[in-house]
Amino acid sequence: MIQQRILAEGRNLGRGILKVDTFINHQVDARLMMAAGEELARRFAGRGATRVLTAEISGIAPALATALALGVPVVYARKVKPVTMPAESFRETAPSHTKGHLVELFVSPETIAANDRILVVDDFLASGQTIAGLVRIVERAGATLVGIGAVIEKSFEGGREALAGYGVPIEALVAIRSMDNGRIEFAE
Amino acid sequence: MIQQRILAEGRNLGRGILKVDTFINHQVDARLMMAAGEELARRFAGRGATRVLTAEISGIAPALATALALGVPVVYARKVKPVTMPAESFRETAPSHTKGHLVELFVSPETIAANDRILVVDDFLASGQTIAGLVRIVERAGATLVGIGAVIEKSFEGGREALAGYGVPIEALVAIRSMDNGRIEFAE
Repeated sequence: MIQQRILAEGRNLGRGILKVDTFINHQVDARLMMAAGEELARRFAGRGATRVLTAEISGIAPALATALALGVPVVYARKVKPVTMPAESFRETAPSHTKGHLVELFVSPETIAANDRILVVDDFLASGQTIAGLVRIVERAGATLVGIGAVIEKSFEGGREALAGYGVPIEALVAIRSMDNGRIEFAE
Repeated sequence: MIQQRILAEGRNLGRGILKVDTFINHQVDARLMMAAGEELARRFAGRGATRVLTAEISGIAPALATALALGVPVVYARKVKPVTMPAESFRETAPSHTKGHLVELFVSPETIAANDRILVVDDFLASGQTIAGLVRIVERAGATLVGIGAVIEKSFEGGREALAGYGVPIEALVAIRSMDNGRIEFAE
């Protein structure tokens, strides 16, 4: 499903950047995204998640779809602290590969409690550094991480290995093992 | 539904800023948002929308829910032009009340065609200036605007009047007529 759309519409822009902005981010195929959310929800069904956590902007759609399928709220970390957020908020930083600088992640303590069981969902699992920033926020809230899900994994960027130490299931709906020489090669 | 949640969890922060970040933005009640999207879809059911257009960030959740209910894609205007977007993109600016400066809105011409019928959806209808920026993008794409929807209208900010000239139905699920003196007063 996702793989077919990547083959049909995805473009390898070089430097590991996959253009999927006609169906995943910028323009979102709502039905495809809901199907992706339902599949992620199915894979984590036994984990007892009470909240889905993601990072704005492109994580919102897959995380909302997953949360809807699980019947739980979704929280998206803000990258600029809004005026509505309490002064004492969780703040982490993560390097962004596509943006080339550090991004900040802010989450209000009003939205994650120590008894929460958090499923982290993002559109891409690449280096895993944004997701690791979200996991550090889960830890600082005293909540329990129960899983990490992504729509598309770029397995050649090592994120799965970087996140393995957290000891939770990591699921991606499709994995790309190489984007060398302008190609897009999927894992088996 | 929305009104009850605003009464229970919304907070008037002054200067017309309504804090709804435990159920509309930042944290999103996925089921409430899907119900809001279904209601907006019902109100615009006869308008033949082929796409929903919104602006990142907080517009994404209600627009995705509406698009899912209508069975059409959703496009969110980016506020920072991503590396994946073509050089020749639609660009508009709009003043942001809560941010106090101009925001830019970028939409790829790959996502809106001249034969599209566009429903614009956002979380808030306040001054209407962000929505007007989106409508100008619809016009520049040569597409047809078929309606404007919002979850929450702040009717005291005049957005409905500012947008009336576009001659399309404008729908909000709940309207607040005053936030004076720390109160939140709903329209009838």
